[in-house]
Amino acid sequence: MTAIDPAVQAHLDETREARLESWLEFLRIPSISALPENAGDVRRAATWLAVELGRIGFEHAEVCDTPWHPVVYADWLHAPGAPTVIVYGHYDVQPVDPIELWTTAPFKPFVRDGRVIGRGAADDKGQVHMHLRAAEALFATRGRLPLNLRIVFEGEEESTSASLPGWLEANRARLGADVVVISDTGFFEGNLPALTEALRGILYTQIDVVGTPLDLHSGSFGGAVENPANALARIIADLKDRDGRVLVPGFYDDVLPLDDAARRRLAALPFDEPVYRASIGAGPLQGEVGYSVLERKWMRPTLDVNGLWGGFQGAGEKTIIPGHAHAKVSMRIVANQDPEVLFERFRAHVTEVCPPGVTATVQLLGSGRPVRTPMDHPAAIAAARALEETFGRAPVTIASGGSIPVAEMFEHQLGLPVVLMGFANPDDNAHAPNESMVLANYETGIRTICRLWDLLGETAETTSRGT
Amino acid sequence: MTAIDPAVQAHLDETREARLESWLEFLRIPSISALPENAGDVRRAATWLAVELGRIGFEHAEVCDTPWHPVVYADWLHAPGAPTVIVYGHYDVQPVDPIELWTTAPFKPFVRDGRVIGRGAADDKGQVHMHLRAAEALFATRGRLPLNLRIVFEGEEESTSASLPGWLEANRARLGADVVVISDTGFFEGNLPALTEALRGILYTQIDVVGTPLDLHSGSFGGAVENPANALARIIADLKDRDGRVLVPGFYDDVLPLDDAARRRLAALPFDEPVYRASIGAGPLQGEVGYSVLERKWMRPTLDVNGLWGGFQGAGEKTIIPGHAHAKVSMRIVANQDPEVLFERFRAHVTEVCPPGVTATVQLLGSGRPVRTPMDHPAAIAAARALEETFGRAPVTIASGGSIPVAEMFEHQLGLPVVLMGFANPDDNAHAPNESMVLANYETGIRTICRLWDLLGETAETTSRGT
Repeated sequence: MTAIDPAVQAHLDETREARLESWLEFLRIPSISALPENAGDVRRAATWLAVELGRIGFEHAEVCDTPWHPVVYADWLHAPGAPTVIVYGHYDVQPVDPIELWTTAPFKPFVRDGRVIGRGAADDKGQVHMHLRAAEALFATRGRLPLNLRIVFEGEEESTSASLPGWLEANRARLGADVVVISDTGFFEGNLPALTEALRGILYTQIDVVGTPLDLHSGSFGGAVENPANALARIIADLKDRDGRVLVPGFYDDVLPLDDAARRRLAALPFDEPVYRASIGAGPLQGEVGYSVLERKWMRPTLDVNGLWGGFQGAGEKTIIPGHAHAKVSMRIVANQDPEVLFERFRAHVTEVCPPGVTATVQLLGSGRPVRTPMDHPAAIAAARALEETFGRAPVTIASGGSIPVAEMFEHQLGLPVVLMGFANPDDNAHAPNESMVLANYETGIRTICRLWDLLGETAETTSRGT
Repeated sequence: MTAIDPAVQAHLDETREARLESWLEFLRIPSISALPENAGDVRRAATWLAVELGRIGFEHAEVCDTPWHPVVYADWLHAPGAPTVIVYGHYDVQPVDPIELWTTAPFKPFVRDGRVIGRGAADDKGQVHMHLRAAEALFATRGRLPLNLRIVFEGEEESTSASLPGWLEANRARLGADVVVISDTGFFEGNLPALTEALRGILYTQIDVVGTPLDLHSGSFGGAVENPANALARIIADLKDRDGRVLVPGFYDDVLPLDDAARRRLAALPFDEPVYRASIGAGPLQGEVGYSVLERKWMRPTLDVNGLWGGFQGAGEKTIIPGHAHAKVSMRIVANQDPEVLFERFRAHVTEVCPPGVTATVQLLGSGRPVRTPMDHPAAIAAARALEETFGRAPVTIASGGSIPVAEMFEHQLGLPVVLMGFANPDDNAHAPNESMVLANYETGIRTICRLWDLLGETAETTSRGT
């Protein structure tokens, strides 16, 4: 079934156990980019990668400082005539709260039922590790790669990649390439191999509502002053109507309408709503009226509260009017929405609907533009073939509701096409407790990557010879 | 100006320093009733009081166990023919968060600018201590009291007095009295001596909204499922309209309308809205349309979020749809609203307005009925006179937006009239950081209490002689 080089295959079969051990070692580093107290761990993960990249055969392996977390760079550029690919992944992970819902310590990964369980197993340290080991297999069996690779592993992806645009700009000279391959997406429900053609963008904000410098006694003052927590709730309620439509004026102005062909393609995917619901333990699915579930989560913008807090959260009762209340509110946006334009519209709307007597301010915490990948690009076509040859069936074309800001940066800042070939299984609990990755996806996916590099190398040589 | 017994006055003048020291010692005990970890401190405060009551001359001083925090009881019943008064106060205090806004440690009280600053200074340990020291002055100078007193100091008032109804029922035999005097209220703005004729009741609830067992990735699932935090915000927004009217069906059905005389009396009080606003640092005052500020905070019911939480509250971004979200929501209620009836209406309304796709449940955390005090009762008349003779001006009649559930218990359960004579200054930051009490209110108020006991003792003897 697989067209992978037998020597590479044999090498991979022999090194399976050591590879798993190395993956678990990498996952044990708690590289949470959002928490200042984990900054040292993030750097430790970067150093771990740079050392490994150098050891297996890459050159110029370097932990590059940025204003925040480092970028790991390495390259191997000795395949003249063959294309040059930038491989992007991120070695930072999400925070782990609510920690009490993990069945084990998030940074003590282990294998159960054919999965590796631990923070970052799928998103994205597992997939970073796959690229590392795929390249190692090629280096180990041939002493070279079939094409030119530049490795860019980032440490701030879960915190909106704040330093990356500056780093890309500063390193533009060593980032010349034909295409970017990003493995930070996944398969379709049923663990169906897939290529991702679109990513939603994101606009992440914080709303701060302030009433009084101190909390007030809710008996003495209840009825006399506006309550910041009630006001926050009203603001949030005024962000989206009961039909799931975002109420920010102009929010939908630039959204490309879904064409009939796209809707038919989505409708044809084997999406099983009851199975999907059961897998997350959700009640009846809800969202923007007039769109299917896949349309809503992939192709339509939406708005969610990611967290909210204010006043007394302890056991029992505390009779106060909180002095202030807060919410993290993010929007997922689609082509052709512009996050900068939307942020101003959002801020104006929040100010407009804020009840009198309290003050609401809006902070922009991060943003990323939506991305569409060219499915007719040679690298996308080769990726589809590599997936089919290794997993045994042609990939479906899907989209992702999530955002990979860096994909947008490569596309807009460096002007490079981006191919999104990810191996996470759909029930991986990314960003949630008990994150996991199916071991078979990891193992077969490493073979997919080897095959993809061979295919791209061959194509290019053919092309070279042809010219 | 004062008609207080010169011997008592002289004793109080001589013992001023020791009294302050004792007050500070009492405030140092962190008797937070809401927090399980402070249960030992609550008991320590109870023991401190019982020892002091016995030492100064009371009999039967006892720390009475209840299912939760103890009640301190003591009595002195050797004034035949004179009335018997139950003195109620509470020795527990509110939690201290947000601790970062205190200018000093809440349980290391100190004197600054004529105030004692520390948790419980005003609410209510300061006023409990006043009663202790007033009785001590009478015992010390005369060896007796001019009337019969029963002391009931409670340790759960800030946690809705859950054990008190049972304790009152079990001790009905030793609670025979003519009237209850409660010092847990305060003066009017400008530190104007006042008697309180009405207390609002309370209904304290928690709303829990649950979506999925685990948090979901807001990119992958945004648009597919209802978000519990957004749903909570919508529920809260649906509890009160933009005119400050509570939207729970039937909420106002039993509210006694404000009559013209009451509205005129409130309008005549020297309420300075700009000063009031400045004292709390609030923006334009807000509340139910059609009512004055005093009417809104004293005589009209209202609804406030006391706290809310859900999802990510840390620094930076976490892109999740929270699995659940929560709010503490309390209502202040007025005559003749019944909290039990209202709770059922509230629960039904929350269930009704909860968006589909998530589940909302409502817990009842506590309740207390509203109270009205008979201002023509001899004890109320004597209290007004004692205040005028010691503070130099007739008290104004006010109400309190706050709730003292025990007042309602004495009134409804034991059938006793309740006089609310409190000495807290209006800017005391009760329930908030930097709680304080004006030292002069404390000192003069102790003299007021001594004078009140003398007046009630005399009145009764005159009455006895007259019959």
